[in-house]
Amino acid sequence: MIYEDYAIFTVGPVKMSEDVLAIGAKQTPYFRNDKFSQVLLRCETLLLKMVNAPKGSRVVFLTASGTAGMESAVMNLLGSDDHVIVVNGGDFGRRFVDLCASHEVPHYDFRVEDTNLSDIEIRIDAAKYNALLVNAHETSVGTLYDLNAIGKFCQDNELFHIVDAISMFATDELDMQKHNIDVIITSSHKGLALPPGFSMIILSPKAIDRLNDVKVHYFNFKNYLKNGERGQTPYTPAVSIALQLLKRLENIEKNGGISLNIQQAKEVAEYFREKVKELNLPFDFYNNYMPNAMTTLAPTNGKTAKEVVVELEEKYKIIVNPNGGVLGNKIFRVSHMGNIGKEYMDILLSALTKI
Amino acid sequence: MIYEDYAIFTVGPVKMSEDVLAIGAKQTPYFRNDKFSQVLLRCETLLLKMVNAPKGSRVVFLTASGTAGMESAVMNLLGSDDHVIVVNGGDFGRRFVDLCASHEVPHYDFRVEDTNLSDIEIRIDAAKYNALLVNAHETSVGTLYDLNAIGKFCQDNELFHIVDAISMFATDELDMQKHNIDVIITSSHKGLALPPGFSMIILSPKAIDRLNDVKVHYFNFKNYLKNGERGQTPYTPAVSIALQLLKRLENIEKNGGISLNIQQAKEVAEYFREKVKELNLPFDFYNNYMPNAMTTLAPTNGKTAKEVVVELEEKYKIIVNPNGGVLGNKIFRVSHMGNIGKEYMDILLSALTKI
Repeated sequence: MIYEDYAIFTVGPVKMSEDVLAIGAKQTPYFRNDKFSQVLLRCETLLLKMVNAPKGSRVVFLTASGTAGMESAVMNLLGSDDHVIVVNGGDFGRRFVDLCASHEVPHYDFRVEDTNLSDIEIRIDAAKYNALLVNAHETSVGTLYDLNAIGKFCQDNELFHIVDAISMFATDELDMQKHNIDVIITSSHKGLALPPGFSMIILSPKAIDRLNDVKVHYFNFKNYLKNGERGQTPYTPAVSIALQLLKRLENIEKNGGISLNIQQAKEVAEYFREKVKELNLPFDFYNNYMPNAMTTLAPTNGKTAKEVVVELEEKYKIIVNPNGGVLGNKIFRVSHMGNIGKEYMDILLSALTKI
Repeated sequence: MIYEDYAIFTVGPVKMSEDVLAIGAKQTPYFRNDKFSQVLLRCETLLLKMVNAPKGSRVVFLTASGTAGMESAVMNLLGSDDHVIVVNGGDFGRRFVDLCASHEVPHYDFRVEDTNLSDIEIRIDAAKYNALLVNAHETSVGTLYDLNAIGKFCQDNELFHIVDAISMFATDELDMQKHNIDVIITSSHKGLALPPGFSMIILSPKAIDRLNDVKVHYFNFKNYLKNGERGQTPYTPAVSIALQLLKRLENIEKNGGISLNIQQAKEVAEYFREKVKELNLPFDFYNNYMPNAMTTLAPTNGKTAKEVVVELEEKYKIIVNPNGGVLGNKIFRVSHMGNIGKEYMDILLSALTKI
């Protein structure tokens, strides 16, 4: 297999735990029965608890990657009568802009730079809008937005609040009630540390009331919710990933709950960043508003980011996350998500001292 | 985990081989690089070879289950100017009818019963139509249609020919050139014996020329083909399943190619059916046109099919495939797909003698 003995610091896939991997080594069971229904229902309960969802919230389990979660949320929850603020701070913000354009959702492409939006109320005149779409962590550059400020802004201005939490779920605080969030989109292969191919959309009662009749069967949330009442999906789900998800969620519960999981991610991230400074490594932090999920580094020793990425792979069997496009030479990204601790970050730190 | 020590005879998921499962136990590698591109490109080459695709054919790799493959094929390849014959012989035929209705594709709901369509030319007046949609194996009841007859009918009448081959791929003959097929839809968790969540749509040059501009990003085949040129997908693919797919396709190659794989499935199916007769088991074959992929059985001892299914599960730890709806009491289904041989069928046969 490719990259079998490499250390993994990509922003997805991320390193999985041994007990999650062990499920991947087992035969996929049949799923149109009560035993599998209990698996999905338990996943739903634990996910809702994890984000402090309001009573009556539900989860759509979609067998597809994160973009399908983003797109299906736009299709099911927004329409030509809406006027949506799209927070666009990078590739994934731009993806929401493109999705709104394709699905004919009137929107304002709100370009942000170098702010965590704790100042959102002075940056946007909310009066013209009724909804807001944001990637809580803009993964392409590593900006974690201030969900407290955005949530308050949405509440004050009665904006329907959809949060793509794909790359900060389980590593940074996410609370539907505290942050006034109506919809959360997440995916299997980032903070949840599972294989890619399974996305979850968490809907508040307000979101459920708002659902459109979507003609694309595969993305029709109403049908997912109806089947979900008995713990099933309308079409074959990624059964193995669902079983791995349950294991992962139960592990988080068993190990002290989501706040402890977030605390651990924070410690790993802070450890890494302190070491980068302490060791005088030739890298700047690219971003002032970093999530626990990852650190974006810009080389300062004359090497391009691309050269560093290649050197780490070829000389040290370490995979970090390159950037695409114009930023590719300037920055690369280091994940702190998944089943890793400080010792695992040391593998990378050790290599970075020799770059 | 659920059903860990059960024998599996469901029509998907099916029993996987040990070396495919071993990949499921490994960390998912990063994929936006040349090494993973080589994996997808090699999968494409082997899939095209397997179905004897015409030169210039391509594969769309969609991270989603089979219904998404069916729906995206309808969306990308048919439209309001078409007039489509939909072969409807059960639940999956009806699904194509519903998809055409939802996506406003003019269609004729051609209901078939008790024929393998070797007589298709006397059953349909083709003059009014320009395309045909068929589930080569109607999985809900176990009818394998005659692709030779359908293919000739499509050629004679210049019908664009889309085949859902999901539940006969790799176990029954499927030849794009011999059967005049323009599009094949298949999925990971049936004859290919991989976990669910990955679908492949094989497009002939004629199909590629016909592609619509689809506004749903996640299902936009043009974008998949563009990214596919360098062995990539526009959105995160089910990386682990792609790696397992390559292993599976290479195994088929190594073991003598697809015709030998089909031959083995045929031998297992025939062995099972002969034994059912030889042992005088209280079951009728429900269908006269059986695929190698599975056998549909109707109990004749006064028990309902549902009762048999439950008894097999509870007393013998054997999972066969129940039917839904009105057929649920009448029939159940037994898969011959996946990594099983005659000895594995004996587990079920032994239990059936005691039912």
